[in-house]
Amino acid sequence: MSEWTRKVHYYETDQMGITHHSNYVRWMEEARLFYLDEMGYGLKRLEAEGITSPVVDLHCRYLRTTTFDDVIRIAVRVEAYTGVRLTFSYVMTDAATGKTVMTASSSHCFLSARGKPVALRRQAPALDALLCRAILP
Amino acid sequence: MSEWTRKVHYYETDQMGITHHSNYVRWMEEARLFYLDEMGYGLKRLEAEGITSPVVDLHCRYLRTTTFDDVIRIAVRVEAYTGVRLTFSYVMTDAATGKTVMTASSSHCFLSARGKPVALRRQAPALDALLCRAILP
Amino acid sequence: MSEWTRKVHYYETDQMGITHHSNYVRWMEEARLFYLDEMGYGLKRLEAEGITSPVVDLHCRYLRTTTFDDVIRIAVRVEAYTGVRLTFSYVMTDAATGKTVMTASSSHCFLSARGKPVALRRQAPALDALLCRAILP
Amino acid sequence: MSEWTRKVHYYETDQMGITHHSNYVRWMEEARLFYLDEMGYGLKRLEAEGITSPVVDLHCRYLRTTTFDDVIRIAVRVEAYTGVRLTFSYVMTDAATGKTVMTASSSHCFLSARGKPVALRRQAPALDALLCRAILP
Repeated sequence: MSEWTRKVHYYETDQMGITHHSNYVRWMEEARLFYLDEMGYGLKRLEAEGITSPVVDLHCRYLRTTTFDDVIRIAVRVEAYTGVRLTFSYVMTDAATGKTVMTASSSHCFLSARGKPVALRRQAPALDALLCRAILP
Repeated sequence: MSEWTRKVHYYETDQMGITHHSNYVRWMEEARLFYLDEMGYGLKRLEAEGITSPVVDLHCRYLRTTTFDDVIRIAVRVEAYTGVRLTFSYVMTDAATGKTVMTASSSHCFLSARGKPVALRRQAPALDALLCRAILP
Repeated sequence: MSEWTRKVHYYETDQMGITHHSNYVRWMEEARLFYLDEMGYGLKRLEAEGITSPVVDLHCRYLRTTTFDDVIRIAVRVEAYTGVRLTFSYVMTDAATGKTVMTASSSHCFLSARGKPVALRRQAPALDALLCRAILP
Repeated sequence: MSEWTRKVHYYETDQMGITHHSNYVRWMEEARLFYLDEMGYGLKRLEAEGITSPVVDLHCRYLRTTTFDDVIRIAVRVEAYTGVRLTFSYVMTDAATGKTVMTASSSHCFLSARGKPVALRRQAPALDALLCRAILP
């Protein structure tokens, strides 16, 4: 489990006067890459080893709007990991009010440079071990 | 039902060499606003009447990657409409191969300028009628 | 000279109720890549040959604001070309009013896969010829 | 003078494997809004008083590419201030190498809610005083 904090940028708002909903998907990426960094196995290292991890599924529930200058706390954790598929879950909180603004999940697979599915246990055993430990209760 | 076609822009790719997944969420918005325009009741008119329609739920399944210059066809239709909540579903196709690259859905509520829930039947009856007709089999 | 037309997307607005200024930089890219396509030598082909063309200079003068649903016409032409540096100029017009909303320019160099400067005359002579012709009065 | 530090996000890269040039324009906004906050007169307060400050001119010189995970330091200062027009200048540095990756400037005017030009000395004298002091040598 990890927590990533960030402010809403002006350019992330839209003419409704709120954060455009597409930006939360980008914040989810920020939060999970920060988490992988904290685990000690960042995406940069994974990609240097020739493995990419595209998103295959995304689910977002928008509970409250946010806007420019709001501070958002994003709690992220590993929800599931099968060796070939990894799911993160997210809870975003408005730091000023403590209220939940969004809950979400994203699932990822792992591909070789040629676009073939990769089993982390063989191709990146150190990351596999970290992810297995991350889902322990 | 409506179909929106667009090319992948260079700035929508990422260093994996594919379209960044957050952009599909923006294309969904393009497609549904085009659809509302075609229905004859665009978002511009709705907002001029003081009603906004934020996203409350989003679900995306990424089936195939796309990249710069690919032509994407987005079929969009009204999946459900309750008077206070509207759900669109989307099927995105690579125009060159005919293969489905994504299926998705988004749900929306309707709010007044003060952020209060709005029943379209009373506040925007013409749109309400169009949406009711759109979900007929 | 070429003309690229596009509408302002909802997600391109900000809480001022206008198009966020960073998006014009992306439209400039759309317009010049469309122009290269029309010339018969698109960026996809150039990159397939191992040549990239990063932006080295950008100048934008914002004359009028635009907003959601506005139709923008972008006239783009080759302003200068030295064989190693290429400059485009842009005039953006609001299609409804005919008024100029922005004038801009962007300069680009050409790099090999290893990041070394490339002279197009040797590495991509067909594109070199097209660009030379494009700047004729 | 102020300094804003931030990492390059994955979604800010493009298929060249570098930061897409449009994102620097967004980072400039981050840096100058951080600076105004530090001055004690943030954009949020200015907009609450009914004043917006659209960009009227932008100039960017891209000296070196950056990419995912790079740490960027953005030094920003008030270059000129006439009471109706404000110009910031920026120097962006790769924190790891100390090398300059970009120099830039942006100019801004001030508008009332009705889109009329505003003289800060009368409409926001406290900000006017801060900006006058900021350009002292």
